[in-house]
Amino acid sequence: MQFTVQQIADALGAVAEGQTSLTILRAAEPGDAGPTDLAMAMSPKYAEALANGAARAAVLWDGADWQALGLEAAIFVQRPRMAMAGITSMLDRGQGIAPGIHPSAVIDETAEIGEDVSVGPLAVIGARAKIGKGSVIGAHCVIGMDAALGEGALLREMVSIGARAQIGDRFIAQPGARIGGDGFSYVTPEVSGAENARKTLGDQGDAKAQSWLRIHSLGAVEIGDDVEVGSNCTVDNGTIRNTVIGSGSKLDNLVHVGHNTRVGQDCLLCGQTGVSGSVEIGNNVVLGGQTGVADNIFIGDGVISGGGTKILSNVPAGRVIMGYPGVKMESHTEIYKAQRRLPRLARDVEALKKAVSKLPPSD
Amino acid sequence: MQFTVQQIADALGAVAEGQTSLTILRAAEPGDAGPTDLAMAMSPKYAEALANGAARAAVLWDGADWQALGLEAAIFVQRPRMAMAGITSMLDRGQGIAPGIHPSAVIDETAEIGEDVSVGPLAVIGARAKIGKGSVIGAHCVIGMDAALGEGALLREMVSIGARAQIGDRFIAQPGARIGGDGFSYVTPEVSGAENARKTLGDQGDAKAQSWLRIHSLGAVEIGDDVEVGSNCTVDNGTIRNTVIGSGSKLDNLVHVGHNTRVGQDCLLCGQTGVSGSVEIGNNVVLGGQTGVADNIFIGDGVISGGGTKILSNVPAGRVIMGYPGVKMESHTEIYKAQRRLPRLARDVEALKKAVSKLPPSD
Amino acid sequence: MQFTVQQIADALGAVAEGQTSLTILRAAEPGDAGPTDLAMAMSPKYAEALANGAARAAVLWDGADWQALGLEAAIFVQRPRMAMAGITSMLDRGQGIAPGIHPSAVIDETAEIGEDVSVGPLAVIGARAKIGKGSVIGAHCVIGMDAALGEGALLREMVSIGARAQIGDRFIAQPGARIGGDGFSYVTPEVSGAENARKTLGDQGDAKAQSWLRIHSLGAVEIGDDVEVGSNCTVDNGTIRNTVIGSGSKLDNLVHVGHNTRVGQDCLLCGQTGVSGSVEIGNNVVLGGQTGVADNIFIGDGVISGGGTKILSNVPAGRVIMGYPGVKMESHTEIYKAQRRLPRLARDVEALKKAVSKLPPSD
Repeated sequence: MQFTVQQIADALGAVAEGQTSLTILRAAEPGDAGPTDLAMAMSPKYAEALANGAARAAVLWDGADWQALGLEAAIFVQRPRMAMAGITSMLDRGQGIAPGIHPSAVIDETAEIGEDVSVGPLAVIGARAKIGKGSVIGAHCVIGMDAALGEGALLREMVSIGARAQIGDRFIAQPGARIGGDGFSYVTPEVSGAENARKTLGDQGDAKAQSWLRIHSLGAVEIGDDVEVGSNCTVDNGTIRNTVIGSGSKLDNLVHVGHNTRVGQDCLLCGQTGVSGSVEIGNNVVLGGQTGVADNIFIGDGVISGGGTKILSNVPAGRVIMGYPGVKMESHTEIYKAQRRLPRLARDVEALKKAVSKLPPSD
Repeated sequence: MQFTVQQIADALGAVAEGQTSLTILRAAEPGDAGPTDLAMAMSPKYAEALANGAARAAVLWDGADWQALGLEAAIFVQRPRMAMAGITSMLDRGQGIAPGIHPSAVIDETAEIGEDVSVGPLAVIGARAKIGKGSVIGAHCVIGMDAALGEGALLREMVSIGARAQIGDRFIAQPGARIGGDGFSYVTPEVSGAENARKTLGDQGDAKAQSWLRIHSLGAVEIGDDVEVGSNCTVDNGTIRNTVIGSGSKLDNLVHVGHNTRVGQDCLLCGQTGVSGSVEIGNNVVLGGQTGVADNIFIGDGVISGGGTKILSNVPAGRVIMGYPGVKMESHTEIYKAQRRLPRLARDVEALKKAVSKLPPSD
Repeated sequence: MQFTVQQIADALGAVAEGQTSLTILRAAEPGDAGPTDLAMAMSPKYAEALANGAARAAVLWDGADWQALGLEAAIFVQRPRMAMAGITSMLDRGQGIAPGIHPSAVIDETAEIGEDVSVGPLAVIGARAKIGKGSVIGAHCVIGMDAALGEGALLREMVSIGARAQIGDRFIAQPGARIGGDGFSYVTPEVSGAENARKTLGDQGDAKAQSWLRIHSLGAVEIGDDVEVGSNCTVDNGTIRNTVIGSGSKLDNLVHVGHNTRVGQDCLLCGQTGVSGSVEIGNNVVLGGQTGVADNIFIGDGVISGGGTKILSNVPAGRVIMGYPGVKMESHTEIYKAQRRLPRLARDVEALKKAVSKLPPSD
């Protein structure tokens, strides 16, 4: 895989200057770049390191003086991360999963495998499963019976997809992602202490100790187009209806989505975020790393949570929240600042109490 | 799999009315239900949607007017989630793991496989491992040497069970669950900064930088009857003794249980909860999602923690706790309310300081 | 595997007394120990239970009266956990992965397998991958193309290592660990609400709803010597440069390390800790369980965080921190104590306000 500087600029819709016929094999950080690398130096701060490397070509910010930086060619971009999306897509060398069906794969004879599908070593594809054309199924993947995967999927190694999952086009799953485990749903024969404590906000009442009976998951998982799920993340089956991940949404590593939950479109759920069961999440929601979401609540469109936020009640659309429990970001900041001054505040109050006690009584 | 309305009512020990010979193929939400579905409409709120679907039969709350809801048959239940347990258990279509031993499975000749055991494609069963009768071992599972699994187990795909694990009857493991990884246990040759900081609550002293030596796990994992573990959850081997999960306990997705820890009976550990090493957890404990438990502490019977609680010290039996660090729920609520008023409180104190400073001196 | 008491003492560099020719087969807790077990009784508290067991030999603290404890032989140690490291290493029975290459493994003909390497059933090793001599590759592992693993590795079952990963000697990976999934990195064509909210600390501005474009990971993962990664933990590929885990560092179960992050040497990242992308972590850092680290920050050498800490900004070397957001441990303790007194403080302020309002006006 190689491109000229001009070809990369053209793909980005960007302007290139200098010797744009230079051949590029890789992208590199400015200080590590060799003569066939394209140095990523989209800000003056990063460009400083060009001198430590041997780059002949770089991606620079708009208006940069490429010749003064000792380069022979340059591409100019306005939104660096957008350029990164384009360049990394062009130069991705992938995982090398060979075309065709590996002979060690175990594919049920009733499965429907589309054109130009690759299936890696030791993958298992169940009865009546459908794999859309151009999909790549990594080594050791397991696709359950009656599951359907759209076109152009990329499943890395050891991904599992449960029976009856319905997944759209261009699905990407990182290693060990689990779609369609059963939901975590149990009930005690009589009212439990946990049920009482929820109602009373803290009192278990006189509920007796009981064992848990299992509520099976009859629903499956339904995933839209252009969804990506991270390494070892888990999306559970719904109980009666399906659990849903909307088109364009991305789940990071070790994210958990509980049964019945519906995630909208174009959401980002960052690392280790956990969403309980029966949650409704709108579109364009961004949940920062290690966010937690209590069950049976609503999160409106465009909500953003900072890292570590625990969302314990409904959140209206457009709100930016943080904290445990999550509150509006500005409230959180205000509370937090007041907290840091709290020891001083306590001393002030003690001093005031003394001062006031010494004052003459207000007859 | 199909049942009449009457058969389902009988299995639930519930009363049915109307045309109870109707055939049911699936359970469905009221608005999605078709003519062969049993609509789950256990409260007036859910029953409203019956009009949007085409259900002829439904499960309703006690005393509901089924004919007014346009139904031909109904089952009446008093504790809806208990009915869900019964109905979902009857109608579960499962994952379709075929009976018998798949020819691609790699089974050590010294393993003891019980009667009517199913082993999925490419599963690996080690030396002297025992699989109890009627168990279902999913595709790509790995059972370590000398491990023992009781009767009636259901292991979904890619579950791993380490050497010497001892597991009771009716064990259920969701995809990617890991039983019997080694514990996370290290030591530095001399006292480390972390050891000092624990003792002093914050001061590392003059401990020098050192490398970590590994403490191996000689113990295994011991699991009672009727335990379920979620997708990608992890239970580590003990160091000398076994790590223990008591009968009837359920672990959700991505839950972590550290080495030597003993979880009692009938506990629920909700999504992404993490329990450190050498913790003692009683019976009927419920830990909400993303709860964290520090090492070497005790949690009494019947303790309940709210989502996101970090338990840093012993908790007496029966307590309901929340927060970071976890405190009694009512204390947490009180502290939290006071926190939200904290910025106002700070302003009040400033005003008081001014007011008092303007008062005549007290003598 | 069996040793005499004397052999174990010699390996530990410790003194043994009594009948040091006794044969030891296992280590055991004092109360469980049988006649061929070595009881771990390194403190008077643990030694009490010796009476409940049948140990003839024990490891004791320096100066213990072994004869009074009814033992026939004893080993005396000064730092119990160091002794545990030595003893557990000697007595580890392992997972029983057979020597040699299992015939069911799928190994690319261009892979370079070192001497005395064991490869378990159904493992997959990709093109040009290198496995250093004496390594043990567990069942169902997948090693990507062009990945290199040093000497003496131990990979438990179902470990995956992505293409181009570079890993040093004596690497240990617990079941389901994922090295080299792609990083979680996206961009919107125009400035997003999340970008605005970060800059303004809470205001999304008028950013419109947009879909996410993927930034591919061209970098890989680079791991030093003597690194261990826990069950189901995940380390992502870098975007342009590699993600790095320094020599001697240990990652616990379900730990997440994001793209581009560099973890120094001899660090401990405890259970479920999550480190975002582009973080720089120094040497000898200890992050307690469920710690979270925001992206693009620096954590100095020797930093220690308590369990549940959320690190949202740079931390200077040597600091011990705790809380959400993480602050110096002593500040955290002070804030926490003040918080618990907060409801009382609020009542005091109310009382003061009343008292002051009743005072004569100050003029």
